[in-house]
Amino acid sequence: MNDKAVRTMAQMYKALGDPTRLQIIAKLSQQRERCVSDLVREFTLSQPTISTHLKVLREEGYLIERRDGKNTFYSLNVFSPNPEIRTIIGLVSAQLLTRE
Amino acid sequence: MNDKAVRTMAQMYKALGDPTRLQIIAKLSQQRERCVSDLVREFTLSQPTISTHLKVLREEGYLIERRDGKNTFYSLNVFSPNPEIRTIIGLVSAQLLTRE
Repeated sequence: MNDKAVRTMAQMYKALGDPTRLQIIAKLSQQRERCVSDLVREFTLSQPTISTHLKVLREEGYLIERRDGKNTFYSLNVFSPNPEIRTIIGLVSAQLLTRE
Repeated sequence: MNDKAVRTMAQMYKALGDPTRLQIIAKLSQQRERCVSDLVREFTLSQPTISTHLKVLREEGYLIERRDGKNTFYSLNVFSPNPEIRTIIGLVSAQLLTRE
């Protein structure tokens, strides 16, 4: 077994192992794009905390960001070139929907 | 969103966010059952470390255990009544196979 590949895979799942990050995915699966300040308002968490969660999800490939002037908008990376990411996003979104 | 349900879901993914636990799943997807001492030998990790990893995977529903005399055997819970567990086991096993 390729150790580096398994570590990378573990990081992918670890990124989902946090309730706030799952809630961010839930919100983005309901509404295409949100900026950091939208999420800060909805979660009553600090801006740095939300930004750190967004960074983890982006680095693992689950989110993409788009800059527009002063704002950065985040959305689910549903067209990721990595089929595993697309599968996991689909699975997690469906699971979250049953928990509403 | 149901907070408790999302926390439970985060725990399910967190359990997969560890390379050793993924390697245990990989081994069990190649061979139906292993006991703790088999895994200790294969991983060159201590027995308590392996047991802790097995406990996490079992508590989240990914593994079942079967006692036979002094030995406890572990296998993937591929017939779990929870369809999410069955889906995730299938997905993770397939991903691990591509990383061999």
